[in-house]
Amino acid sequence: MNFSDRLFGACREKGSAVVVGIDPDPLLIPRSYFPDPFPEKNRREALARGFVDFAGDVIHAVHDVAVAIKPQLAHFERLGAPGIAAFEQVVQLGREAGLLVIADGKRNDIGSTAEMYAAAYLGARRLQSKSRSEAADSFESLLAGAEGEGPKADALTVNPYLGWDGIEPFLDRGEGATGLFVLVKTSNPSSGELQDLEVIGDRDGRGASPEVALIGGSDGPYSVADVVAASLERASAARQGALGYGPVGAVVGATYPAELERLRRLMPHVPILIPGFGAQGGTADDVALGFDSNGLGAVVNASRSILYAYRAGGTVAEASRRAAVEMRDALSAAIDRRRPV
Amino acid sequence: MNFSDRLFGACREKGSAVVVGIDPDPLLIPRSYFPDPFPEKNRREALARGFVDFAGDVIHAVHDVAVAIKPQLAHFERLGAPGIAAFEQVVQLGREAGLLVIADGKRNDIGSTAEMYAAAYLGARRLQSKSRSEAADSFESLLAGAEGEGPKADALTVNPYLGWDGIEPFLDRGEGATGLFVLVKTSNPSSGELQDLEVIGDRDGRGASPEVALIGGSDGPYSVADVVAASLERASAARQGALGYGPVGAVVGATYPAELERLRRLMPHVPILIPGFGAQGGTADDVALGFDSNGLGAVVNASRSILYAYRAGGTVAEASRRAAVEMRDALSAAIDRRRPV
Repeated sequence: MNFSDRLFGACREKGSAVVVGIDPDPLLIPRSYFPDPFPEKNRREALARGFVDFAGDVIHAVHDVAVAIKPQLAHFERLGAPGIAAFEQVVQLGREAGLLVIADGKRNDIGSTAEMYAAAYLGARRLQSKSRSEAADSFESLLAGAEGEGPKADALTVNPYLGWDGIEPFLDRGEGATGLFVLVKTSNPSSGELQDLEVIGDRDGRGASPEVALIGGSDGPYSVADVVAASLERASAARQGALGYGPVGAVVGATYPAELERLRRLMPHVPILIPGFGAQGGTADDVALGFDSNGLGAVVNASRSILYAYRAGGTVAEASRRAAVEMRDALSAAIDRRRPV
Repeated sequence: MNFSDRLFGACREKGSAVVVGIDPDPLLIPRSYFPDPFPEKNRREALARGFVDFAGDVIHAVHDVAVAIKPQLAHFERLGAPGIAAFEQVVQLGREAGLLVIADGKRNDIGSTAEMYAAAYLGARRLQSKSRSEAADSFESLLAGAEGEGPKADALTVNPYLGWDGIEPFLDRGEGATGLFVLVKTSNPSSGELQDLEVIGDRDGRGASPEVALIGGSDGPYSVADVVAASLERASAARQGALGYGPVGAVVGATYPAELERLRRLMPHVPILIPGFGAQGGTADDVALGFDSNGLGAVVNASRSILYAYRAGGTVAEASRRAAVEMRDALSAAIDRRRPV
């Protein structure tokens, strides 16, 4: 079973495409999760413990409504080593609750370094684990064991600026079937500065790059985001599972619905992770454009509108569950409105 | 004093443009840095301690030959929370040795999240620290104190795919004058897939994007990398220090010397961090193309060729110092050959 079968299988089973973003912000989490008085030393540890307790309450409350959590790494890195320890505990809590875990780090680097990010968040490469056990070098197998001491995610968000050799190391990791979500069209206001640039080919004088030619049947002109999209479609089409999707996903923001609709057509085998719903402004009808005619093919992340729903009343558990249920139902209704009768 | 004045001031004082990349790899570090027998539990902690001891020996050996260290975060993240604790100790060792510290994380995200990465690695925003102390909210100031419990770097590497609102949060951080190095043309084989795409403007039908128009005087056609370069030049030209450079730097790989020479001309106020020297194949004459006619404007990173020089003989301290001295002298000679007589 590949990553998309796991992800969309959970969507079918739960009737939900909701991903809960775990973006812990000390100024928005109830003060009761932190010690009072706040300590003079080891403040990062105190905050990190509060992050885990808060995330744990939300995860427990939404575990049967959401299909995945998406812990955002910057929020944890802000607290240094204690923050990363908290991140690992949140990953573990998500797994124990039966949720998939999408680590949101938007990592990338040259190939050999991308390999290390992949090992850090997704685990050892499957093909290598055999050759590793065959290796006579016992120190190397001890190292593999050391990496395994931290819990791993099911997928990681990845930045495409370095090209395919910075993406390929994130494929086929870990014991289970892992996935990745590569940034294509991000939800922020200035995403178009680079992603929307119109491409006329590469610098070697070819009229159109091979990737652009691949999507030649679509409605040009082609943007930088389209070139990335084409490479993801090629990779996932070659690895599709029972539900028709591959493990190489795309991030497309809810804040650009026309782009979402177009990119859904350009990438029929690519699972889409849609951020920007709720607090950033995307509506249920906007994100419905990212789904296929079977109501699959995408999942939608909301962070602040679920995590901090308690600020409008109720406990963290009550409010986050209610917000997740409302989101699930709003998505289902919007997706149903678009499906062929 | 801005970041570039600090960086190139150190280059002048030391007669060196050498940056030592701290990329700890357990399979390349001498086994004597790790316990024997290797523990059954807490292996990550044991590896992390070895990383710090090894990096400490290298830093001590090169402190007067190099101007900066560049700890690469994936190598530390691979060990989870204990790895990040080791990263923080390495940053501290670098600062104590009088070296600048460039955290190599290639981070980026939407603006509010980029803000958190910036806080994590560079510290609080200078302009905010005043308004923070004025804030009556004591919990907020406690949080600022918590972030300050980890040592901060002088600069961070940043990925440009999200556009300027994902870059701007990395400016003007911390107590001192911090900098950033934005990926422009990376050293890996597939860097051209995205970075070399030829662009003619944006999808809204404007003939050329404002960023491309800015560098209209240069030798077109324009690539995606050129568009990024133009935005960095504009930002650094507006913030230049005594030595003529601004705090917004660029990463340009030594493995593409023709691009390095061209980008040096396109970005006269942008400090360049050049990776890819040594193990990746870039020569001293290649990287000399990244320097200005005063022999400033760039620094050159080497990781494996310095860290693991001991494998050709000598202790870690002797071999890393010798490799750094040889690199410093080779760079100086190559830069001198290009300077006007």
